[in-house]
Amino acid sequence: MSQNYQDRLKDIDKRTGALFKAQTKVMRSFSQLSQAASADGALDAKTKELMSLAISISIRCEDCIVYHLKAAIGHGANEDEIMETLGVAVEMGGGPSVVYSGRALEAYQALSA
Amino acid sequence: MSQNYQDRLKDIDKRTGALFKAQTKVMRSFSQLSQAASADGALDAKTKELMSLAISISIRCEDCIVYHLKAAIGHGANEDEIMETLGVAVEMGGGPSVVYSGRALEAYQALSA
Amino acid sequence: MSQNYQDRLKDIDKRTGALFKAQTKVMRSFSQLSQAASADGALDAKTKELMSLAISISIRCEDCIVYHLKAAIGHGANEDEIMETLGVAVEMGGGPSVVYSGRALEAYQALSA
Amino acid sequence: MSQNYQDRLKDIDKRTGALFKAQTKVMRSFSQLSQAASADGALDAKTKELMSLAISISIRCEDCIVYHLKAAIGHGANEDEIMETLGVAVEMGGGPSVVYSGRALEAYQALSA
Amino acid sequence: MSQNYQDRLKDIDKRTGALFKAQTKVMRSFSQLSQAASADGALDAKTKELMSLAISISIRCEDCIVYHLKAAIGHGANEDEIMETLGVAVEMGGGPSVVYSGRALEAYQALSA
Amino acid sequence: MSQNYQDRLKDIDKRTGALFKAQTKVMRSFSQLSQAASADGALDAKTKELMSLAISISIRCEDCIVYHLKAAIGHGANEDEIMETLGVAVEMGGGPSVVYSGRALEAYQALSA
Repeated sequence: MSQNYQDRLKDIDKRTGALFKAQTKVMRSFSQLSQAASADGALDAKTKELMSLAISISIRCEDCIVYHLKAAIGHGANEDEIMETLGVAVEMGGGPSVVYSGRALEAYQALSA
Repeated sequence: MSQNYQDRLKDIDKRTGALFKAQTKVMRSFSQLSQAASADGALDAKTKELMSLAISISIRCEDCIVYHLKAAIGHGANEDEIMETLGVAVEMGGGPSVVYSGRALEAYQALSA
Repeated sequence: MSQNYQDRLKDIDKRTGALFKAQTKVMRSFSQLSQAASADGALDAKTKELMSLAISISIRCEDCIVYHLKAAIGHGANEDEIMETLGVAVEMGGGPSVVYSGRALEAYQALSA
Repeated sequence: MSQNYQDRLKDIDKRTGALFKAQTKVMRSFSQLSQAASADGALDAKTKELMSLAISISIRCEDCIVYHLKAAIGHGANEDEIMETLGVAVEMGGGPSVVYSGRALEAYQALSA
Repeated sequence: MSQNYQDRLKDIDKRTGALFKAQTKVMRSFSQLSQAASADGALDAKTKELMSLAISISIRCEDCIVYHLKAAIGHGANEDEIMETLGVAVEMGGGPSVVYSGRALEAYQALSA
Repeated sequence: MSQNYQDRLKDIDKRTGALFKAQTKVMRSFSQLSQAASADGALDAKTKELMSLAISISIRCEDCIVYHLKAAIGHGANEDEIMETLGVAVEMGGGPSVVYSGRALEAYQALSA
């Protein structure tokens, strides 16, 4: 299962790279936007990635979940912080957020193994 | 194909179970909420599961579709009732609900076989 | 407050009428779709309007809430049935469905007065 | 009614301006992204604004509808082109897109008066 | 303008209170869920309310924005933290999140005045 | 990979065909709606399919992306037009539209090969 999510991350990167080549101006601006929005500031980068994870669950975007989960782990988010993020998503999304939080939990177990 | 959807239901249960362990207070409350909302009352449980199915299609949540479809069948929903539920979803969602209703129909054929 | 929701219904009708004139073929087909989907069948029209109400809350479409609430009342939905529909919406949408169910409840009080 | 939508556009501009001051790096990047995405190219700017209008209706974002409708008119979109855009939105969104297309039509009448 | 948002908060409370009476079991469970999800833990309550604010913007729920913004302020969120939350929402939602972040900013100015 | 997307299109057709049999009146009306909305008019069919593609990305409907991408190609949309459509979707959806535009690009490479 772990390999599955690692592959998924690679596929996301590959597709995003292809989009960068095809729509360079748009994607370069998005990249700058993303860096500006997710950099350490009054809120640290870890918190911001957890926010993006919570949004990703709420809107049921599975690639987004895997991407921002990986980024949150990379910025030092621990298991409790991630699980509480899933709790907030459930509060803000009910049943559909339960099933996507379940997928986020599975991805966490795979990516933190 | 049938096995596919049965497996999907098992995976949903497994992931939800893991989420229950990780966020027990949140999930216990959600479970109570879910039981209160879906119990027989002025509307019967079957009708409520069909409503949840219609919502699941409208918001394009595939795990939700499979879960609430199974629950609707379990509460005695017959094929005509399920198909008319898909019709309501198409009215309320246009083309995207057509493709997700098509998936719900496929799941129904697999789970009721 | 009642007048408010009655006016809202009139505005929806007026705008939909204008759209009918501007996109007649599309809207005539939609009208046929809507009639086919919401007619009495294996599920009765009341149940189908309650389903549409549940979907409307889940997707946070306030005009849709008022429109389908009125239609559900018109098909004989009673207060308990409507309130339980709101409960299903909360199960399927968490906090955002709480605030929109609150709006649906307010609209019900105004339109059934 | 016309004044209403003109005021709405001014309010959107005012709020976006305040956001620009508060989140300058993020908003400057978004502005560059927006300019790159909506500039004349293989598709002209008018077509791109009509696309953004269609998306705005589909996701039920009323400020977005008014903003991109105004931009489409500014790039020379005529009434038929706008009405057919609403038709596509109805195809891709069913009933909820009917009510938001009705709002877009009302806004068009006000802003093109 | 301040009064406007204060009134909006009162209306949300009033409608939610009415829903509590109408769907007591569902709403009591939701209330417990909400308390469990938003309590201080590995993440503090302020961070969780900012997450809920980010989600609210992403899904374009204006009542949710006002409600969770007020709660975030109540838990000590300062202006910079709130503005950076809007930045994350823009990253995760593009143009539609720009207009709703603009509304969140206006609400912040009114509610913190 | 190409075969993958061709199979996906076949599966969509198969499921939609089954839905047609199960909900004939609803689906016949939807079919008429779809034909009326997507026919050549003030905007040509190609442009309308690109609009539907843009909407499909914005709402994260993968089957819709593949279906309308195929239709756009069938109506003569070239690579630049499709890529600029993805750019508009990114403007209107931020990060989640980046990952779904990446999937649309991959589908384009497979279906135009």
